[in-house]
Amino acid sequence: MVVKVYGPIFASPKRVLVCLIEKAVQFETVPLDLFKGENKEPEYLKLQPFGKLPVIQDGDYTLYESRAIIRYYAEKYRNQGTELLGKTVEERGLVEQWLEVEAHNFHPPVLDLVLQVLFAPLRGLPSDQKLIEESDEKVQKVLDIYEDRLSKSKYLAGDFFSLADLSHLPFGHYLVNQTGRGNFVRERKHVSAWWDDISSRPSWQKVLQLYKYPV
Amino acid sequence: MVVKVYGPIFASPKRVLVCLIEKAVQFETVPLDLFKGENKEPEYLKLQPFGKLPVIQDGDYTLYESRAIIRYYAEKYRNQGTELLGKTVEERGLVEQWLEVEAHNFHPPVLDLVLQVLFAPLRGLPSDQKLIEESDEKVQKVLDIYEDRLSKSKYLAGDFFSLADLSHLPFGHYLVNQTGRGNFVRERKHVSAWWDDISSRPSWQKVLQLYKYPV
Repeated sequence: MVVKVYGPIFASPKRVLVCLIEKAVQFETVPLDLFKGENKEPEYLKLQPFGKLPVIQDGDYTLYESRAIIRYYAEKYRNQGTELLGKTVEERGLVEQWLEVEAHNFHPPVLDLVLQVLFAPLRGLPSDQKLIEESDEKVQKVLDIYEDRLSKSKYLAGDFFSLADLSHLPFGHYLVNQTGRGNFVRERKHVSAWWDDISSRPSWQKVLQLYKYPV
Repeated sequence: MVVKVYGPIFASPKRVLVCLIEKAVQFETVPLDLFKGENKEPEYLKLQPFGKLPVIQDGDYTLYESRAIIRYYAEKYRNQGTELLGKTVEERGLVEQWLEVEAHNFHPPVLDLVLQVLFAPLRGLPSDQKLIEESDEKVQKVLDIYEDRLSKSKYLAGDFFSLADLSHLPFGHYLVNQTGRGNFVRERKHVSAWWDDISSRPSWQKVLQLYKYPV
């Protein structure tokens, strides 16, 4: 059974794609155009009632929320491809902790920067300068904590690559390459080395090559 | 080894407490006063560098982020107490999906309501009426989707109680009992029955009895 992944050009589905490649799981992609509002059409809402990306279909099994999907495949194919959950329940606990940190501390201010710095001008809307300043400050504080952590272990959850690192790739790419804020990463020695390490993985390079971002 | 849980009177640590009780895991609590800023003191920041609650210590093992901690204990004690992750990898996938929905769709607007309706007046600050209106609308849209889901299965991830339901208790309690918005739940038949079911569990009643909310 080949997994279907909706909306591959957008950032959150890329979290799923890079995971599937790491796990050597075959997939195909289904285009979905957010700019045309295809995510609000009744057929799509049957799959994902909140109208968000991504969603996957795996035979009769439908699942949404990117960080739920990557946990599912990391567990389902535990013995295939890269181990992404750590080897012990304690290691998995730390993977879960840093996945939550990514979701609640890293992602929100980076998303705000992407929306304000990249997307608002595209739509002819003014950027919210106060929100940009606040987001810049939040992202840098988070990266200070990452710098400390990554001075003690090679990856976030320990000395092993995991879902916690992988989950940073789609919006980390925007932050480093598209918002003019690469210096936030480059000014922090361990964060910079970590970013080079995870973003140069063949899985991520393949995602970038196959599915260009819309912006 | 007895698990230490920091800050039991606050909402997010209650997510951990109710999980530990369901899993029949012994714990003790360590008071932490957010109102006095004890979460920003150096000793605490060594445990939780973001200065947030909760954190647990289990022997030499320290873990933070409430939804990571509950996953850890649900997995570590898989065969003890209530099964909270489902029985199969597909069931766990759906538990993860609805845990993410709780974190990203339910929690943010409910937190905004708690801050604006309950905490702002306590601090003598004006409430943001626009944010309250937007949050009211968001919460009701989310509960419409829950109503549809709960018309098809008894709990969010299926016909079994799980971390996905449990995770709604601490802020669901605020929403129903403390913000004057119990009608959001009561106007939706299946959501109302679900809330009565999960909030009447002995584990949650024990948490409420032992650790009063600060407000």
